[in-house]
Amino acid sequence: MINLQNSTPEEIRQLIREGNLKSPTSGMANGFLQANLVVLPKDMAFDFLLFCQRNPKSCPLIDVTDAGSFTPVQSAPTADIRSDIPLYHVYRDGKLTETLTNITELWNNDMVAFLIGSSFTFEEALVNNGIPIRHNDEGINVPMYKTSIPTIKAGIFEGPTVVSMRPVAEKDVVRAVQVTSRFPTVHGAPLHIGNPESIGIDDINQPDYGDRVTINDGEVPLFWACGVTPQAIAAHVKPPFMITHAPGHMFITDIKTEEVGVI
Amino acid sequence: MINLQNSTPEEIRQLIREGNLKSPTSGMANGFLQANLVVLPKDMAFDFLLFCQRNPKSCPLIDVTDAGSFTPVQSAPTADIRSDIPLYHVYRDGKLTETLTNITELWNNDMVAFLIGSSFTFEEALVNNGIPIRHNDEGINVPMYKTSIPTIKAGIFEGPTVVSMRPVAEKDVVRAVQVTSRFPTVHGAPLHIGNPESIGIDDINQPDYGDRVTINDGEVPLFWACGVTPQAIAAHVKPPFMITHAPGHMFITDIKTEEVGVI
Repeated sequence: MINLQNSTPEEIRQLIREGNLKSPTSGMANGFLQANLVVLPKDMAFDFLLFCQRNPKSCPLIDVTDAGSFTPVQSAPTADIRSDIPLYHVYRDGKLTETLTNITELWNNDMVAFLIGSSFTFEEALVNNGIPIRHNDEGINVPMYKTSIPTIKAGIFEGPTVVSMRPVAEKDVVRAVQVTSRFPTVHGAPLHIGNPESIGIDDINQPDYGDRVTINDGEVPLFWACGVTPQAIAAHVKPPFMITHAPGHMFITDIKTEEVGVI
Repeated sequence: MINLQNSTPEEIRQLIREGNLKSPTSGMANGFLQANLVVLPKDMAFDFLLFCQRNPKSCPLIDVTDAGSFTPVQSAPTADIRSDIPLYHVYRDGKLTETLTNITELWNNDMVAFLIGSSFTFEEALVNNGIPIRHNDEGINVPMYKTSIPTIKAGIFEGPTVVSMRPVAEKDVVRAVQVTSRFPTVHGAPLHIGNPESIGIDDINQPDYGDRVTINDGEVPLFWACGVTPQAIAAHVKPPFMITHAPGHMFITDIKTEEVGVI
């Protein structure tokens, strides 16, 4: 695999756009904010925008396009939302019907794209603090789980919160909370530390999305709210039509991570 | 004047609801988050929600009601948006047409209420750090100014950013930045420090809203993005109908300020 951690967002988006990169984006374009995608028809956009406002831990909004526009003007003005993500999921009536590398043919003038901050963004800050990222070291996708933590309903949108999990050595847990607290626009501090069952996860070795990672003795699982939450919501409320990124396959913005650090 | 700094939000809202309190709310219900109000018909709500998402410094959303509901469920479930603010402004076609102490008669099932964090919230934190609040000491309303800083357009909404100003002793400027940075949901860090002309304010002694305050020798004016911005926007884009709070006359929520501190 080519090392893309020092590539620019535009270089990586171009590789993706030309069909030369189809893998999860964790660890790529270090220093730049990554985002989850949700595309909905305009008539559902107010409810979803309200859902994000009410659930800022799982759905921190980075950018929202004008209806019909596939250009995320605030976060990556040279990008094309329809082609610059490695893998897309198409949901019809809540069922995943297509997995595509390009959604240009599905796009129409009625669509609104929402970019939601991704926890991949703060992984670099954890590494810089001496906290390794297990799924990157193992070369796989981050494990994600549906939880018993409900989201706050807005219009048709309601359902469970999804979390991502990273095992952290006991001695580093406090620092991991501090480091990620600086970045509320990419999920911020963990939602939960420790016992998976307390938040409705029965088997830590069977993630609902992504891959299983090793948890060593002396490590504590830390759970962060996850931008895959809208996909669990889709399965729950079955909107007629919705497009998302495939879990782990993010949109890389031009926004520098440090610019969104709160202090 | 009765001292209301240690009263509960519900006690103050009840005084207001019963017509016994009509003054600005700065310094009241210490420890609780105060909010600006914007009420719009549902057909403008998506654009305004998007405007807030794109302009989080001036319009950090605390709560948004479902269409027709006058109950801010997330932030003050026992409150009534129509009666619990000391003074309201009604705008028709962008012109301020009525100043009312109750909007129950104007309310209908098509309306959506937006509560936007107020900088009154972080004033207590400044005081706790030894930084006095001039307008409170002088018993008047905070001075607010239209600036040359544009907001990011969303649908029909666009126009100038409004700022509030507090004079701070030179030695306290750094600490004032640090203290307010903790509270992004109530405008967070200042937008600007020092020279008013750099942000299009010609005369610091003539605020566009609120009152003039004394600036002593050795003090620096600090400017924070202000939730009155939507009122300047209203004057600019002239929506057919819009209700807001009167500047300085806020809605007091049940949310503890410390709960929204980012770290």
